Amino acid sequence: MNRIALLLILCISFTQAQTKDEQMLRKIYNEALSNGKSYEWLQHLSLTIGHRLSGSVNAELAVNYTKNELKSIKGVNSWLQPVMVPKWVRGLPEFAYIETKNGMTTTVPILALGGSVATPASGIKAELIEVKSIEDLQKLDPSQVSGKIVFYNRPMQDELINTFESYGGCVDQRYAGALEAGKLGAIGVIVRSVTLANDDYPHTGSMSYGDLPVSKRIPAAAISTNGANLLSSILSLNPKTKFYFKQNSQVLEDVESHNVIAEIKGSQYPDEIILVGGHLDSWDVGDGSHDDGAGVVQSMEVIRLFTELGYTPKRTIRVVLFMNEENGLRGATKYAEEAKRKNEKHILALESDAGGFTPRGFSFDTNQANYDHITQWKSLFEPYYIHLFDRKGSGADVGPLKDGKVVLAGLRPDSQRYFDHHHSERDTFDAVNKRELELGAATMAALVYLIDTYGIQE
Amino acid sequence: MNRIALLLILCISFTQAQTKDEQMLRKIYNEALSNGKSYEWLQHLSLTIGHRLSGSVNAELAVNYTKNELKSIKGVNSWLQPVMVPKWVRGLPEFAYIETKNGMTTTVPILALGGSVATPASGIKAELIEVKSIEDLQKLDPSQVSGKIVFYNRPMQDELINTFESYGGCVDQRYAGALEAGKLGAIGVIVRSVTLANDDYPHTGSMSYGDLPVSKRIPAAAISTNGANLLSSILSLNPKTKFYFKQNSQVLEDVESHNVIAEIKGSQYPDEIILVGGHLDSWDVGDGSHDDGAGVVQSMEVIRLFTELGYTPKRTIRVVLFMNEENGLRGATKYAEEAKRKNEKHILALESDAGGFTPRGFSFDTNQANYDHITQWKSLFEPYYIHLFDRKGSGADVGPLKDGKVVLAGLRPDSQRYFDHHHSERDTFDAVNKRELELGAATMAALVYLIDTYGIQE
Repeated sequence: MNRIALLLILCISFTQAQTKDEQMLRKIYNEALSNGKSYEWLQHLSLTIGHRLSGSVNAELAVNYTKNELKSIKGVNSWLQPVMVPKWVRGLPEFAYIETKNGMTTTVPILALGGSVATPASGIKAELIEVKSIEDLQKLDPSQVSGKIVFYNRPMQDELINTFESYGGCVDQRYAGALEAGKLGAIGVIVRSVTLANDDYPHTGSMSYGDLPVSKRIPAAAISTNGANLLSSILSLNPKTKFYFKQNSQVLEDVESHNVIAEIKGSQYPDEIILVGGHLDSWDVGDGSHDDGAGVVQSMEVIRLFTELGYTPKRTIRVVLFMNEENGLRGATKYAEEAKRKNEKHILALESDAGGFTPRGFSFDTNQANYDHITQWKSLFEPYYIHLFDRKGSGADVGPLKDGKVVLAGLRPDSQRYFDHHHSERDTFDAVNKRELELGAATMAALVYLIDTYGIQE
Repeated sequence: MNRIALLLILCISFTQAQTKDEQMLRKIYNEALSNGKSYEWLQHLSLTIGHRLSGSVNAELAVNYTKNELKSIKGVNSWLQPVMVPKWVRGLPEFAYIETKNGMTTTVPILALGGSVATPASGIKAELIEVKSIEDLQKLDPSQVSGKIVFYNRPMQDELINTFESYGGCVDQRYAGALEAGKLGAIGVIVRSVTLANDDYPHTGSMSYGDLPVSKRIPAAAISTNGANLLSSILSLNPKTKFYFKQNSQVLEDVESHNVIAEIKGSQYPDEIILVGGHLDSWDVGDGSHDDGAGVVQSMEVIRLFTELGYTPKRTIRVVLFMNEENGLRGATKYAEEAKRKNEKHILALESDAGGFTPRGFSFDTNQANYDHITQWKSLFEPYYIHLFDRKGSGADVGPLKDGKVVLAGLRPDSQRYFDHHHSERDTFDAVNKRELELGAATMAALVYLIDTYGIQE
């Protein structure tokens, strides 16, 4: 065979491979958009079950629902992985007001931060000290902080295009604000909600007291952005303004919950596991449709798409619906421990936990060789308007699997609206668009298909 | 100077130019996202004024409001360009039901198509003939159609990623359905709403009777997709099912309206005009926020961004807010006629008329040389997640300017949600996200800046 003939054959087989992959991606997207089941699943999870905080009855309903739905997919085996999770309860009512003059009050919307202690039963009323950051707080003399409520009011940066970067630049005051203020003798913490929207919805989220002794743990709540702006204006007129809030949150004993796992065994390399997942738990406001109902049903849809299309995977395709991402990451930790114990070999772990919006691409946590390997498929994704490939991270739940070999990845949907909804009463089913959700599921399935077909670089 | 030194200098000046452009784009996006005015303008246009059908009082309120707002921007000159527009009025109430048995009725939501004649005052009741297309209808014997209501029920194709392509594949039954059915003796037309959502909102839109004599012009209305699905099911059970509808729409005399024009004169090439625009008119349902309030305020924002940033354009930057895109294109036609008469030289005409969603890129109607010229700037747009550049068209209002020289362009926002809202009661301000709108304006301004700086290929 001469070299030209060889080249020709190589070209033809390359073209055929391209065509086969192109065809498979087209089938995946067609099935997801025309007969997709993710939206119907999400409707049940969001509207019939509702929010799903770890340790709640709803969380267990979601565990059973998704396990059974996965089991009903032909050829799929599903089971539960037990894990102990924290049980924090809000204990309504929560209530706050600004006291502009003696007896003159304006109520403002608050939500206790997840993990926060309660106020005394009669609430807390004190003067405030407004700061823009933990660093600003730490520059103050403890006498300026002691006996006061610390008001963290650094807004998200609106110039950043990727709103997750703005979130990253702001979330420390929510997570560690009470810890740092407690050290200086503050009696409570009010944190500006981590959202780019100016509205009346407070956004909760996790916080930690670190190893602060129980006596120094002070209650912390998020205030809506409109509330924060109002409070800041009033403080600029009268720094002696007092703030009152009352909340009844508490941490109970850990309870047993579960990760939901389902898989199709690989036909050629059953020991190579390709994981797709999201997290089943949500905060206890709204219905957790975007965070992370979307990721849950998209992951379920990936496995349904393959069985529906009659595709026999070479490698094992496993769906993992993690419990307790929001306030403990216990499900992800447990899953990784068990995987290590069983010496399981994961080659890809892909999470969807950034909302059910139009997918733009993926972020990877992997080496250059695998990144190059994956980005050679870029042109296959272009017909689906998937252009974004970077190495800026993956997902919280797949993180614990990191071992220097597995390719960790996160689906990257359009991020503009995400923090309008995140951890608030606005995270509801009506904010999810059916096609956007389905496109995300198809995009995940497309990557899974390619990794299943071509493997990863060792 | 040796060649290496020369090369070095060329490299440095190229780098500096890149840096200058990168900096300018960063400034544009920062200003739009941090201090943007488009959302506030849209709020007024949508919530204070409301929908703006050509010839309506609201349309004139919008003309005056936008002209005055543009005039208030420092250094901007604004004026009105008179144009005669059609005045079609809906004339409520509209009403429809399916008669499943004699006397047993189910109401379904309809909206008269724009331009349709009324039914007789007592309405129309007749059997239906369901078809999937005009081609299907034309295969029928006139006896099968005569005296009946033709029900066009071809859904939008959900597999296409760009929903405008699905729209293009479906809209003929709305536009020409009554014309073709009238020729065969039908007495009315009901058209499935051109949307991908399954809901209870009918979507109106333009239709034409061509040169059909007045006596053959039959009333046409859109039915919601849920209504269409219900009707189709009922017909499959009983093909003799009757349908009743009544509408009071009519065409009145043409009235005078206006295009709104505003510009900053170019400092070096004032005769080279860069046009950005959208259309002021909307349908008479919802408030026209996405179609095309978004395009209007984004175009206004382009010129505000330049003045706010103290940027002195080399070429003339002109905003044109066109009247009557929806049912006549009279504003665009008039503008192009006047431009030709005055021998004006447009080098770019960029329209935003595809919704206020996250911008993905641009479509161009231009030659290869200019497309290559523009796409060399792709990397400048990537930090803003703008990846989409194609040559698949531009916008309806800029179309009449086509002369083989001017670069025609359309902003291309994410298209997934657009047709959920388009021409229906769901096209409302609350469906627009502030940041998405602002990103669109900044993306337009970025292209305008680059064309202003580097011109186009002659």
